[in-house]
Amino acid sequence: MILAVCLNPALDLTYEVPALAPGTSHRVQRVHERPGGKACNTARVLGRLSVEVTLCGFAGGARGARFRSALAATSVKDRLTVIDGETRQSVAVVDGGGVTVLNEPGPSLVQRDWDALLADVDSELDGARVAVLSGSVPPGAPEDAWAQLVRHCRRRGVPSVLDTAGPQLLAALDEQPAVAAPNHHEAGGALGTTLEEPDEILAAAVELSARSRGAVVVSAGSDGLVAARGERRWRVRPPRVVEGNPTGAGDALTAALAWGLAEERELPDILADAVCLAASAVVLPTAGEVDLATYRELRHTCEVEELR
Amino acid sequence: MILAVCLNPALDLTYEVPALAPGTSHRVQRVHERPGGKACNTARVLGRLSVEVTLCGFAGGARGARFRSALAATSVKDRLTVIDGETRQSVAVVDGGGVTVLNEPGPSLVQRDWDALLADVDSELDGARVAVLSGSVPPGAPEDAWAQLVRHCRRRGVPSVLDTAGPQLLAALDEQPAVAAPNHHEAGGALGTTLEEPDEILAAAVELSARSRGAVVVSAGSDGLVAARGERRWRVRPPRVVEGNPTGAGDALTAALAWGLAEERELPDILADAVCLAASAVVLPTAGEVDLATYRELRHTCEVEELR
Repeated sequence: MILAVCLNPALDLTYEVPALAPGTSHRVQRVHERPGGKACNTARVLGRLSVEVTLCGFAGGARGARFRSALAATSVKDRLTVIDGETRQSVAVVDGGGVTVLNEPGPSLVQRDWDALLADVDSELDGARVAVLSGSVPPGAPEDAWAQLVRHCRRRGVPSVLDTAGPQLLAALDEQPAVAAPNHHEAGGALGTTLEEPDEILAAAVELSARSRGAVVVSAGSDGLVAARGERRWRVRPPRVVEGNPTGAGDALTAALAWGLAEERELPDILADAVCLAASAVVLPTAGEVDLATYRELRHTCEVEELR
Repeated sequence: MILAVCLNPALDLTYEVPALAPGTSHRVQRVHERPGGKACNTARVLGRLSVEVTLCGFAGGARGARFRSALAATSVKDRLTVIDGETRQSVAVVDGGGVTVLNEPGPSLVQRDWDALLADVDSELDGARVAVLSGSVPPGAPEDAWAQLVRHCRRRGVPSVLDTAGPQLLAALDEQPAVAAPNHHEAGGALGTTLEEPDEILAAAVELSARSRGAVVVSAGSDGLVAARGERRWRVRPPRVVEGNPTGAGDALTAALAWGLAEERELPDILADAVCLAASAVVLPTAGEVDLATYRELRHTCEVEELR
């Protein structure tokens, strides 16, 4: 089983409108609803790959109930910790021109919420081969929330895949996650800089990897990814440019990393999977979904370049 | 007691963002939540005026539960009919530049929902002095939903104040509401035309009043309103221009009409109240709220012009 931990899940709503015009009123033509948040999206991708997956995290209030009922319609096992706060919502307004996203901040946690989550995660780690630790942190969570969770995983011998940002990312790297997978904005943010050139992105991966003593994979959108572990470095580009909606591509990439670790495959093989699964998420409009035909087609010709 | 019937209530969310930029992602800074929908807003204004008011309508699902819990924090009495469908939500995105509204369509009703609502309204009509029948109609409601409700009120001797649009408005006028209060867009839409000039708006009020055999009040935003009943016609303008957010002004206007009818005041007096209470809603950013200081200040100098 792969354990996904989503500290700030969201009930994701998609509103279809003909054209979003600021300052006016709109009749929403269609509403779609699904369980979201980064680790939850990753869990749904893993479910799509027929991997057994369990979701830990916080759920509360009427929206938490809706989140759980939407989650029950997927193959992801629900081990969410119930809190008094109300699960947040995100609204994605889709018109012909693009996607406009409004993310609520999330409920405020209290200490007993956090203690209950750690206990729930601990009980699930017994059966876990890999843990996915991904996404933002709600108000009131400890400043080292992800660091604590990486440490819990390491002590139980469960390799973790970490995807978060800012000070939470830096603190968690010190606890040695097996793989950290920030995108280039997040990697640059953690290092206090902006990464633009391929060499800068690679240097950031090397620097973060020296800190975590594990693999660091930095994604750069349609340019693919670079990775560093110990003395080795790799670059993987998608075999072709894929058009679509990049929302959720990072969550599919994380899913591939966790999947490969759980199957104990070699890192270069896992990296090729990661690029192709991310591209197969771009094809579909909603986060947490992947087009397996695109994945298979790209995977056939995807090459991993080891940098010397 | 005034009975307000809201067939399509909405859980109204307000999202504060620094600037709404289509095609990008936003962190919502603050979220406000309140019970909305036109007749519900009118009921909240009546509650603010210390009028005893009861709300009928449909509520269902997790959002219906949130709606009811938000309503419980007001002085409006909850007599909502519980349905299996999920109460809709509306999102108002507020930035420095204005308000962008996204209205969900509402749950699909089935016949037993409608039958249950009619029974609930009938039982509340016993204690009602006036009924407010206002707003849109959810999918699956009868095409003559408001007409049926106007008829129920008339047969029980309860005068009704009707504010709706389109074919529902036309059908309901035939059932003789005491007052119909469409805005000039709705009045024009019902007559298959566009009303721009003051004389056109007055002629529309006269035509609709001939149809309903009652009073028809047509509001024209910051220009105030015109009204017709029998052979008499009136015009009322606000004593001064009020700056703010016009959302909810029509619901405050409807509240004034119902309040005046319940107190059996003369129509010209009621019309002056309607213009001033609508203006006092413009001052405040959210629908369903009125600034009573503004109302009192305007009411002091508001004059009603009878047109000969």
